[in-house]
Amino acid sequence: MKKYNNGDFRKSDVGSIFEVYGWVNKRRDMGGVIFVDLRDRSGILQVVFNRDYLKDDFKLAESLKNEYCIKVTGKLELRGKGLENPNLATGEVELIVQNLEILSECDILPFNVYEDSNINENVALKYRYLDLRRESIKEKILIRHKICKVARDYLNDLGFIEIETPILCKSTPEGARDYLVPSRINKGAFYALPQSPQIFKQLLMVAGFEKYYQIARSFRDEDLRSDRQPEFTQIDMEMSFATEEDVWSVTEGMIKKIVKEVKNISLPDFPRITYHEAMEKYGSDKPDTRFEMELLDLTEILRGTKMNVFNNAILNGGIIKCLIVKNNGDKYSRSDVEHLTDFVKIYGAKGLAWLKYDNDTFNGVIAKNLEDEKLELMKKTYNISNNDLILIVADAPKIVYASLGALRLKIGKELNLIDENKLNFLWITDFPFFEYSETEKRWKAEHNPFTMLKDINLINEPEKCIARSYDLVVNGYELASGGVRNYKRDDLAKVFKALGISDEEAEKRFGFVLEAFKYGVPPHAGIAPGLERLVMVLTNTQDIKDVIAFPKTQSASDLMSDAPSEVSPEQLKELGIKLDLEEEND
Amino acid sequence: MKKYNNGDFRKSDVGSIFEVYGWVNKRRDMGGVIFVDLRDRSGILQVVFNRDYLKDDFKLAESLKNEYCIKVTGKLELRGKGLENPNLATGEVELIVQNLEILSECDILPFNVYEDSNINENVALKYRYLDLRRESIKEKILIRHKICKVARDYLNDLGFIEIETPILCKSTPEGARDYLVPSRINKGAFYALPQSPQIFKQLLMVAGFEKYYQIARSFRDEDLRSDRQPEFTQIDMEMSFATEEDVWSVTEGMIKKIVKEVKNISLPDFPRITYHEAMEKYGSDKPDTRFEMELLDLTEILRGTKMNVFNNAILNGGIIKCLIVKNNGDKYSRSDVEHLTDFVKIYGAKGLAWLKYDNDTFNGVIAKNLEDEKLELMKKTYNISNNDLILIVADAPKIVYASLGALRLKIGKELNLIDENKLNFLWITDFPFFEYSETEKRWKAEHNPFTMLKDINLINEPEKCIARSYDLVVNGYELASGGVRNYKRDDLAKVFKALGISDEEAEKRFGFVLEAFKYGVPPHAGIAPGLERLVMVLTNTQDIKDVIAFPKTQSASDLMSDAPSEVSPEQLKELGIKLDLEEEND
Repeated sequence: MKKYNNGDFRKSDVGSIFEVYGWVNKRRDMGGVIFVDLRDRSGILQVVFNRDYLKDDFKLAESLKNEYCIKVTGKLELRGKGLENPNLATGEVELIVQNLEILSECDILPFNVYEDSNINENVALKYRYLDLRRESIKEKILIRHKICKVARDYLNDLGFIEIETPILCKSTPEGARDYLVPSRINKGAFYALPQSPQIFKQLLMVAGFEKYYQIARSFRDEDLRSDRQPEFTQIDMEMSFATEEDVWSVTEGMIKKIVKEVKNISLPDFPRITYHEAMEKYGSDKPDTRFEMELLDLTEILRGTKMNVFNNAILNGGIIKCLIVKNNGDKYSRSDVEHLTDFVKIYGAKGLAWLKYDNDTFNGVIAKNLEDEKLELMKKTYNISNNDLILIVADAPKIVYASLGALRLKIGKELNLIDENKLNFLWITDFPFFEYSETEKRWKAEHNPFTMLKDINLINEPEKCIARSYDLVVNGYELASGGVRNYKRDDLAKVFKALGISDEEAEKRFGFVLEAFKYGVPPHAGIAPGLERLVMVLTNTQDIKDVIAFPKTQSASDLMSDAPSEVSPEQLKELGIKLDLEEEND
Repeated sequence: MKKYNNGDFRKSDVGSIFEVYGWVNKRRDMGGVIFVDLRDRSGILQVVFNRDYLKDDFKLAESLKNEYCIKVTGKLELRGKGLENPNLATGEVELIVQNLEILSECDILPFNVYEDSNINENVALKYRYLDLRRESIKEKILIRHKICKVARDYLNDLGFIEIETPILCKSTPEGARDYLVPSRINKGAFYALPQSPQIFKQLLMVAGFEKYYQIARSFRDEDLRSDRQPEFTQIDMEMSFATEEDVWSVTEGMIKKIVKEVKNISLPDFPRITYHEAMEKYGSDKPDTRFEMELLDLTEILRGTKMNVFNNAILNGGIIKCLIVKNNGDKYSRSDVEHLTDFVKIYGAKGLAWLKYDNDTFNGVIAKNLEDEKLELMKKTYNISNNDLILIVADAPKIVYASLGALRLKIGKELNLIDENKLNFLWITDFPFFEYSETEKRWKAEHNPFTMLKDINLINEPEKCIARSYDLVVNGYELASGGVRNYKRDDLAKVFKALGISDEEAEKRFGFVLEAFKYGVPPHAGIAPGLERLVMVLTNTQDIKDVIAFPKTQSASDLMSDAPSEVSPEQLKELGIKLDLEEEND
């Protein structure tokens, strides 16, 4: 087997004979001498073929093309003076080849693997095994491995036990859409692929394993976006006799260790803010805190104004908030601001009021209509100064948060306010337990109905119920979600009642879990960081496909193997199903 | 969070106050004093409730029942003289309780978890979370975790990279039955759950990852036996620039390390025998070498006998082999031997001839018919002595191997010849590449058609073709299977031709792999030890369900969650399928 890593050769190895393997990354034919960058997983070594020296083998060397897989034996030498390559770890040495063996040739490539040029994504995915040879992709897969290794080492050291839970599970009607698997033995019945190991990990707590983890594959049959894949992986954890502080401490320790080992960055402790605070400040429960520009309140300042648009909003129970774009007012023309208005309308806002402050005066349409004392109070309260742009939304709180939260991100990106080198982790806590569904006209569980409430006695005032749940957020992304679980059957019954779930329905949906909770269930809590998201953040990519060895397209296809594909009628017959396509006769 | 492991308390901890958590494993009420064995994952600690001391809390203590989950605070003390429990790691100490909190109560249990009595399997599986509390099951899950940890540490140290391959794959028509997953986005098309990551790991070699592993979930929709489950796990490996010696060395090192860390046994190097030798000696390609009693050849000795049953067998191209049951002839009465005859008939043998040697004479029907010089030669060749039983099958080689191989195991078990403490690992090498299918009247690939042949020039003489494949066998079980892969397209084309696979069919079935092999494919080889089998062997269980946290029954059902189950018509409609049950109108 291969004994050496090409990327590891150094000056100290000079003088010895080595047998090395790899791929021709590039070749330069200088007539009697051919230089080849020989690449393996570890890196590149320059190997040199010399006509005077190699005789017959030189013809073979002349036949080499990019991505030929070869084996060479030769002596490691120092490169000539001035010929060193400081960009290469092995740049001071080269291997003078004595023997060459071509292990396998390479046809004309669909794209060059040594260049990080713009490759058509569909072509890259079809030839994923070539795409994976590219340094930028390979590196991400290696980092993914390293992250898993560090996570496992860390959790093992803390006494966590990795336990595999089933992939062939029971379909549950809530949540996202399940992938189904027809059963051949129990015809007419179906397994579902798990959206998470949630129920199993809670049952492992009932079983007494106390500290569980699993780097667990999960599945969601959703319409895909650039950060979604049909299958994804979670660093799933659950612990007994634990509170949120324990979960935070374990998780934070793990993330810090991963970031230290992968990026050599020592992270500070993660700030914690409540859901309410996050919405007030950032208009989002997954705020990007790499830049300031917080949402500022104008409700009190503008209360009682004669401007109906503001006054009516307040009278209707709404709020008024603004963003102050400091010292960048000149970057936004009147028509730019009109575009921002169109943008906030996507989020339900009826409009975007704006003010500019310049030459020590407020400008803009509403500057003329707003009372001077209001403007002055605004200026004083928020230190408004020249070249500031103030963008205001007055509406129901949800709409104000959503529109200004999105606008904040948009402007942050437009003005390059975001330091891409930062890793801003933070905990969001105290989520509302219930969410009112306008369409269904009833209260629904915001997250997991099995999460514990901060105060079960408030169960009849759903709007006041806070869940003992938490999210770990990084750079504007939700990395992990978790909670302290409600393990008390009586309290669960109250929750189900508040959610309008009948005893019968509860039994059907959660029966075996409720049954399990009869037998000495320990208090427990957990979390599940998304592995892909973590790799993406640590490798600076926005595309989840970059961090999965064999990803699927947005239409959930594998272009390389052509999955999914048609199967034989016999296979379907055996499973007791048949196709039911509306466009069958097309 | 829980700070202490109940099983870890020792004399040196005496005198301090501790807060401990756990389950009431057993309680003994002695009137004013109640002793509780408080169990957690780590073990048991005796906690003592004293009426004089606890006052009101004592009533609470009196209410404790088995499997209540509690939290107690108290002082660790030495047990009284003579009251130590040498069977318990914590047997010298006990916790004198100052405070008790009942975290959750326990209903009447379907079975006692502290006793390893015979529990109805279906009940155990329905309440798997309670079953997992039993020491004997819990221990196996913990050992499974440990095995995975040791394997990962070992492979990581060797530079292997763990890479996740897809679960949603393409269905391929060969091999065992696929589990299918209907696609919602591509209606009428299906994913298949992978029977192994074989194709993906080979493509990872093409991609240049060189050393890959994955503790990988695999799926086979087969009719289940006690050692099969619909989903199972393999320690899947593949390496580039590697020969069989490299694979054997890596695998053997890993298994030795696992066995050392789990059982503190230092294994010797694994013997290697060829497939041919294994069949000749043991009648099996997965021989149990924990006992001798090899198959002995009688073909040459009996050639030319006047006994037609033997002579005809030889004339028809068959062979004659026997087992000599040493010094145990008296254990098998004539009717016992008749039962053995029935047994070998299961394996296609037409009969079982037998001889007994006793009082320095051969006895039995054939002793009268066989020539004396044949009997004498037999006796001399195989050192036959008094109280030996000789069991003979004359038939086609396949039938002789199968029947005597099975008989050898049966007698080995009956006579307790097998040392259950032994771990006999061995490599079986040089498998035949082709196997003649009597039913299809054609040559088929014995294993994987992508395995390299020892000599491709023999391709037109299929019966002579040896594969560069190998199995790792332990105690009569196939633990792992692997091979050096055929990475040369020209040679693969020859193999497909010999298998009667047209270019078109090859393209359809393996097209994207053949395409990948155009682009500088490295020589590579691999193996995939079965994790469940390894855990079973190291924990001395015959039942695969014991080593899986949430196993399925023989009818592939999860009795706990009731999977598989019916799903809604809407779910099916959305997937473009409908049920097609013959007994639909029942």
